[in-house]
Amino acid sequence: MQLKHIIESQQFTVPLLMELFERTRQMEKVVARGGTRDYEDKIMATLFYKPSTRTRFSFEASMHRLGGKVITTERANEFSSEVRGEHLEDTIRIISNCSDVIVLRHTEEGAAKRAAQVSGVPVINAGEGAGGQHPTQALLDLYTIYKECKALNGLSVALIGALDNGRTARSLAYLLSKFERVKLYFIAPPGLQIKPDILSYLDHHRVEYELGESLEKILSQVDVVYRTHIDRERLQRRDIDLSTYNINVDTLKKMKSNAIIMHPLPRSVEIDPAVDNDPRAVYFSQSRNGLFVRMALLTLLFENE
Amino acid sequence: MQLKHIIESQQFTVPLLMELFERTRQMEKVVARGGTRDYEDKIMATLFYKPSTRTRFSFEASMHRLGGKVITTERANEFSSEVRGEHLEDTIRIISNCSDVIVLRHTEEGAAKRAAQVSGVPVINAGEGAGGQHPTQALLDLYTIYKECKALNGLSVALIGALDNGRTARSLAYLLSKFERVKLYFIAPPGLQIKPDILSYLDHHRVEYELGESLEKILSQVDVVYRTHIDRERLQRRDIDLSTYNINVDTLKKMKSNAIIMHPLPRSVEIDPAVDNDPRAVYFSQSRNGLFVRMALLTLLFENE
Amino acid sequence: MQLKHIIESQQFTVPLLMELFERTRQMEKVVARGGTRDYEDKIMATLFYKPSTRTRFSFEASMHRLGGKVITTERANEFSSEVRGEHLEDTIRIISNCSDVIVLRHTEEGAAKRAAQVSGVPVINAGEGAGGQHPTQALLDLYTIYKECKALNGLSVALIGALDNGRTARSLAYLLSKFERVKLYFIAPPGLQIKPDILSYLDHHRVEYELGESLEKILSQVDVVYRTHIDRERLQRRDIDLSTYNINVDTLKKMKSNAIIMHPLPRSVEIDPAVDNDPRAVYFSQSRNGLFVRMALLTLLFENE
Repeated sequence: MQLKHIIESQQFTVPLLMELFERTRQMEKVVARGGTRDYEDKIMATLFYKPSTRTRFSFEASMHRLGGKVITTERANEFSSEVRGEHLEDTIRIISNCSDVIVLRHTEEGAAKRAAQVSGVPVINAGEGAGGQHPTQALLDLYTIYKECKALNGLSVALIGALDNGRTARSLAYLLSKFERVKLYFIAPPGLQIKPDILSYLDHHRVEYELGESLEKILSQVDVVYRTHIDRERLQRRDIDLSTYNINVDTLKKMKSNAIIMHPLPRSVEIDPAVDNDPRAVYFSQSRNGLFVRMALLTLLFENE
Repeated sequence: MQLKHIIESQQFTVPLLMELFERTRQMEKVVARGGTRDYEDKIMATLFYKPSTRTRFSFEASMHRLGGKVITTERANEFSSEVRGEHLEDTIRIISNCSDVIVLRHTEEGAAKRAAQVSGVPVINAGEGAGGQHPTQALLDLYTIYKECKALNGLSVALIGALDNGRTARSLAYLLSKFERVKLYFIAPPGLQIKPDILSYLDHHRVEYELGESLEKILSQVDVVYRTHIDRERLQRRDIDLSTYNINVDTLKKMKSNAIIMHPLPRSVEIDPAVDNDPRAVYFSQSRNGLFVRMALLTLLFENE
Repeated sequence: MQLKHIIESQQFTVPLLMELFERTRQMEKVVARGGTRDYEDKIMATLFYKPSTRTRFSFEASMHRLGGKVITTERANEFSSEVRGEHLEDTIRIISNCSDVIVLRHTEEGAAKRAAQVSGVPVINAGEGAGGQHPTQALLDLYTIYKECKALNGLSVALIGALDNGRTARSLAYLLSKFERVKLYFIAPPGLQIKPDILSYLDHHRVEYELGESLEKILSQVDVVYRTHIDRERLQRRDIDLSTYNINVDTLKKMKSNAIIMHPLPRSVEIDPAVDNDPRAVYFSQSRNGLFVRMALLTLLFENE
């Protein structure tokens, strides 16, 4: 299995996903017994041009649980001369000289691909641009669905939020489209619905989907309720009641008894803390799965060196 | 001995303090022989909402001397979406998913307590708010007094500085009140004297104390001269000569021959560098004791998992 | 061989340089076989008062390849109370209490020397001030020349760029002056030529040199073309065509077949990426040599404890 860089969701085939998830399950066991030292000669460079403490901590903890080392910056843009015309390419070449894997968060779409072209070591896209990809988030989301629902074929999944530039929802839609008999519900306030490029992609891959503005209407039909953030300031109309998109104790009553509630976290008002103790609320273990998926990805990358 | 979190000075009983100090002495030996690898499967997350390089470095070095790993941010506030209404509680839940202990410095009083309530791993308060607590500083201060004076009962301790919002002095007063025949001198410029809540606490625990504005008057009577910072801009009167609170070669002449001079560092003009070589100046070993006390605290927390 | 601190290029004698380079060659082999764990009980503190991700990463990766630990800040100035009159000296004393080596980047010339005077552990100058030194950069430059040209005696070296406050060029000139039959060409636009203190130093040590404004004239005569940055905004005349100082495919044709092209990186327009694949372009391996030289320096410092 060739895995040289992790740039976008599209590069993952179903067999590769299954191998990844098998490896992820192994990593859960590795962590349970206190981690490993197998990768103690490896150095991860986390190069963040935009801060994201949670994503960075998840990657760095993954590396530490594998026994590896980390060098890190969360403000690469300020600490760099790139503002004066320096190439991202040169930075990557230099950093690949003193690390074994580069985890890149960048402000521009396509940055991870450019980095991979010149890097001497694997590059992992840890999120880029506003509408760009964040493939490891999508992979941990998919793993969570797989683990909680015991399947990926035949699932109905509702993606709810500001979907037009929702990196998380977009990447997950790509991944889910690879499975059979999946049905996607895109639920967004007017003006923030998912963009046509995703719909064309789904049409092309014959994936069933529905667009809607009401969460309530579809609640009883879905296996997965995936809620993301809505930036109120981007709404065109002021009369929209965003609270109808929130998850609370009433929402729970209308959901299937074995459905799950997901959220990429951090949340604001989207999910009432009163929901946290319901067994269907899986967003905290979803965040924990990030650790295991990232450990699995790292070991797959290191194997191919 | 149950030690699940380290939130405030008040939680430490005399037996627990004695156990901690015995452990701290062991840690001095552990460091002398190059540290240990006993905790190499542990990850510390240092989550600082306000920067403090010295405190952070002390915690992180403690973890490294124990063989452990560290993930760190010194600007959690900027790197977070909490400004947009995110819960500290969610952040702590996420970070406790990828670490074994969380060291939290926060801008709000009560943050460490809130964090401890939802965290799956031990939380250590590394300082919070203006008038809040900084218990590990108080513990290293107390350890320094114990080590240098060979006792805690029967001591006379002068706390000098802007005591009204002096986190260090307040926390240390709490701890000292647990010992017998302790006498506290609170020496502060007008308007910056220690607040009544501490005095009520001391009254309740029958601890002897005196309030004053003159350092010189009490210098010959005390075993410990603990000088903290005075922020000149908070003085109400402009005619106050702050230099009378400074420690210099003249001060030394008026002190007991076996008294000690402490300071939480960094200092500004409070202590003349000419004092540094006097054997009574213990502020540099006081700072070093922070390493040992924090190592001891970490091992006590890890034992109780 | 006594090496207690690394403050400036001048402290390196020819025998010490040769010992360092022999050690550096060993470190290349150590890295090739996955690093060592010999220094796992050592902690490096990287204390940067001004950010420089690349230099910091190189130092930290060196420490990790040796098995050591790192505590780090890239904004020591903001995170410090030194703005309120705190002493650098106290900071260094505190940090030397919880580390085994301090890597200091500071905004003021002379800071590393001041730090070394009070530090209980070795201090490495990682660059200071505008016209100050950056000795490890100079050492890795010299090692690169030595490795690529198989010699240091008898070389002709062109230093090109804004040489008046070019830390890199100044430090390298100091080091090269220690070798025999070296000839230096200082090529700079009007107003940015190397300062008289360096020329006096070269005169005193009987090193041959030439000053010039044209790169083209001397290209065919030199073994090393060392290009550094030119800050356009500091030029006094607007009619100067800076592109004549750039390295491109045409430049290559005029160079000796065995000459080398160096650059401290990051570059802007100074070197055309079309040059990167020419065997004479050694700037990427130059940057990689930083890792090996810094590992070698660390082991020499730790030996002398």
